[in-house]
Amino acid sequence: MYLAVYTTLSDNDIEKLLENYDLGTFQQAFGIAEGVENTNYLILVLDAHANEQKYILTVYEKRVRPEDLPFFMGMLEHLTRHGVPCPKPIAAKDGSPIQTLLGKPVTIVSFLQGRGCRNSGIQSQHLQELGKHTALMHNAIAGFTPRRENNLSVSGWKQLQEKIGPRADEIEKGLTALLAEEMQYLKQHWPTHLPAGVIHADLFPDNVFYIDQKLTGIIDFYFSCNDILIYDLAIIINAWCFEQQREFNVTKARALLREYHAVRPISNAELEALPILCRGAALRFLLTRAYDWLNPVEGAVVTPKDPMEYVRKLRFHQSVKQHGEYGL
Amino acid sequence: MYLAVYTTLSDNDIEKLLENYDLGTFQQAFGIAEGVENTNYLILVLDAHANEQKYILTVYEKRVRPEDLPFFMGMLEHLTRHGVPCPKPIAAKDGSPIQTLLGKPVTIVSFLQGRGCRNSGIQSQHLQELGKHTALMHNAIAGFTPRRENNLSVSGWKQLQEKIGPRADEIEKGLTALLAEEMQYLKQHWPTHLPAGVIHADLFPDNVFYIDQKLTGIIDFYFSCNDILIYDLAIIINAWCFEQQREFNVTKARALLREYHAVRPISNAELEALPILCRGAALRFLLTRAYDWLNPVEGAVVTPKDPMEYVRKLRFHQSVKQHGEYGL
Repeated sequence: MYLAVYTTLSDNDIEKLLENYDLGTFQQAFGIAEGVENTNYLILVLDAHANEQKYILTVYEKRVRPEDLPFFMGMLEHLTRHGVPCPKPIAAKDGSPIQTLLGKPVTIVSFLQGRGCRNSGIQSQHLQELGKHTALMHNAIAGFTPRRENNLSVSGWKQLQEKIGPRADEIEKGLTALLAEEMQYLKQHWPTHLPAGVIHADLFPDNVFYIDQKLTGIIDFYFSCNDILIYDLAIIINAWCFEQQREFNVTKARALLREYHAVRPISNAELEALPILCRGAALRFLLTRAYDWLNPVEGAVVTPKDPMEYVRKLRFHQSVKQHGEYGL
Repeated sequence: MYLAVYTTLSDNDIEKLLENYDLGTFQQAFGIAEGVENTNYLILVLDAHANEQKYILTVYEKRVRPEDLPFFMGMLEHLTRHGVPCPKPIAAKDGSPIQTLLGKPVTIVSFLQGRGCRNSGIQSQHLQELGKHTALMHNAIAGFTPRRENNLSVSGWKQLQEKIGPRADEIEKGLTALLAEEMQYLKQHWPTHLPAGVIHADLFPDNVFYIDQKLTGIIDFYFSCNDILIYDLAIIINAWCFEQQREFNVTKARALLREYHAVRPISNAELEALPILCRGAALRFLLTRAYDWLNPVEGAVVTPKDPMEYVRKLRFHQSVKQHGEYGL
């Protein structure tokens, strides 16, 4: 948990913003210490029945492009309408969930109970729940028509790889060659005819809330985009199914795949593509981490994450001979 | 609202701390953006009945002396037991409300609903409520025996005045002389035989919570000390009863004094001392503000408050001929 409040809002700012909404009387605001590159506040509001309600107010900083916000909010609105436990955008009196405060786009969404899963506390039950809810989410999103391209898929990786260039060897000798070879392989073999739709694309443990082992919320949809549906599973396998980020745990992957499959059957073509999708997901996070590692932001509070974690994961997936090694 | 989180706590830190308590399962933590010089987090906990409970976790930084904490916590414990709406200290399993985290003293207290009064929104009803609750607090504290000296009373002012010295004239020409004369006057005339007890000593609008115009909480007891009881009223008159911090509003002061008097009758001796106590309270905040103004902390987020506000207030109180001018 680090402080990620970039825009400091006064009580007056928040009170003025709430005049745009029909939520009730502003009570208190709390900066959210956990987060990425937006500014988040928990706000407490007394509704018309004098009951306290919680909401999350987000001020969008540089990471999220304002023109993408209607896609993200539309998606969340669609998913909550279909019962997926994710933040529900609150529409202002003008009908829009996107407002402006201090010249920046802001949204208010419903608060979700529970807490993000810690890496050290991940158990198979968490993955069962996640498999089930990822499938429910993929089914629910089917009727959502807006599109957003995944700018962190094959062509985006290529750009990142070129930006990193030979400096990858500063991280580990030989990494430049590894990246180039893997890039070449994935470009040639990346599947093109698998079922696609809007995916989350960032289902890391801190983006999934649980109470005990029941999934209560999925958050942080700011990488969501149109892509191969089970690429979401490849990302989850990378982010959740390695012990201490080193040893692959097939029990956890099996729990994920089985429960997903029970809700949205995984075809043979999808299963067969799993190893390469896992390689792609590993390369995607390896590339962004390597780039951030080599280009640290001056004065940043957050330590760049270790790219070597994803080198190890990539090597594991390269060694996989067939999908059964993932447990299904 | 400014960011006042000095110590960054991880979820793991908080979870580890909560093992000392019988509160339930940690859910989420939020840094509190409003505050003074301690670090405050709102923490959400699921109790044994799976109900969400809110608490305030405070990490004590330099301002509060650790040896004063048992006094403050004992006082809050005593006041809540007597029905005063203030934070209730939560005792850990070892029986103490004071624990250690990252080498610093920490406490957990109950959360209070409502919000601090904004200067621009103060109405007479707020002062009626505050008068009543200040009297209830003064009555309730009577049985509390620990003592803490007010190090910001006459001798403390003298020290501050000497530290400021002739530099006061950098704020306004003539201020050095004004401070010296007022100091001399108050030293000679400060009352010594009025009813005394533990007072709050910092009852500013942001330390008193309301929902609509009902008082729901009094917070920030870190200046509380043994002193003349109605010195609390003198501080309130200074902090709450001037329009735009300039024009004295006798209606508000009358509302305060009447409602206080209805619960804890103000004696003639106390009433007669009101003008000089108001002068003392004005000097106290003038001195600390003048000192902070002349000695800004490098890199501080918080702008020092204007000392001239209290020069004007002091001059008003100097002009008062008798207590009736305060409305009672």
